[in-house]
Amino acid sequence: MGSNNRSERTTYIYKGKRISLKIIDTILPNGKFAKKEIVEHPGAVVILPILENGKIVLLKQFRPSVKNWVYELPAGTLDKVGEDPKECALRELEEETGYRAEKIEALLKIYPSPGYCTEIIHVYVAKGLKRTVPKQEETEVIETLILSLADAIELIRKEDIADAKTLLALLYYEKYFLDT
Amino acid sequence: MGSNNRSERTTYIYKGKRISLKIIDTILPNGKFAKKEIVEHPGAVVILPILENGKIVLLKQFRPSVKNWVYELPAGTLDKVGEDPKECALRELEEETGYRAEKIEALLKIYPSPGYCTEIIHVYVAKGLKRTVPKQEETEVIETLILSLADAIELIRKEDIADAKTLLALLYYEKYFLDT
Repeated sequence: MGSNNRSERTTYIYKGKRISLKIIDTILPNGKFAKKEIVEHPGAVVILPILENGKIVLLKQFRPSVKNWVYELPAGTLDKVGEDPKECALRELEEETGYRAEKIEALLKIYPSPGYCTEIIHVYVAKGLKRTVPKQEETEVIETLILSLADAIELIRKEDIADAKTLLALLYYEKYFLDT
Repeated sequence: MGSNNRSERTTYIYKGKRISLKIIDTILPNGKFAKKEIVEHPGAVVILPILENGKIVLLKQFRPSVKNWVYELPAGTLDKVGEDPKECALRELEEETGYRAEKIEALLKIYPSPGYCTEIIHVYVAKGLKRTVPKQEETEVIETLILSLADAIELIRKEDIADAKTLLALLYYEKYFLDT
């Protein structure tokens, strides 16, 4: 497998369900040649769900990668490159928490690991939440917490939250959106 | 290649210079069986360097993974699992910026992508900076910026900074450490 253009040659090591691994031979803007190991990822979403009473929905999830329980906002992977991230956010929010959002607003886009991964995470805040039925996957081990934003920020201060997208969504929302 | 214990079987797809890819068959805390694609990463550091005049050192770096120029604080990958992250931070800071730090303090630890990657990033703030000679690698395409923390925060507000570790180090430092 491979593709060619004037400045890059790609060799796939693995094409997986969610992530793929490729080696690229590329010419950098400084004219130098570089060989890089790159993880290809379709992109993802993370959602800060805010209930009518101002409380937020936070999950605690077992992550086999880091062999740890991790506080995370609801999140998910795009079905494929090009899926509308807003649609993905609405779907993942409902599946993971059992809330359907009437309003969803983009906060920012982040690269979690630009050194070796193509992933972009689209960060949303969701409001106008109506209760439905969560449909968590069997391989998702999740506890749901309802807490105030202040209590979530207190979890950050105590260094109990380590997930980058969750830290960023909470700190960014508190700083730039809370009083608007 | 593979290893066995009571609850996990690991098959390596690829063992690379920096990242490896493995498939794990694991038993989750809920007793269910799961097969996961996991990127193995030795861990990394990111450093917020603060000069005597209060200004910070920020880099703008071309990242082939996302085919984009990305604002990033100095950062780097541990040479191997188990390298002292503080040593790594001091080395990477000097290599990338040409500053040696007399004081380096841990801020927090983050998981950039716990859904599929083992990576932990250790976040530091560095002070007491003395000028030396940067030793950037040929495959690093980097511009160095010296700017105030307020100007960096303004770049965040304008959504010019997308790198998760950089956003977090800046927002976390401003919120919890600036006036202490």
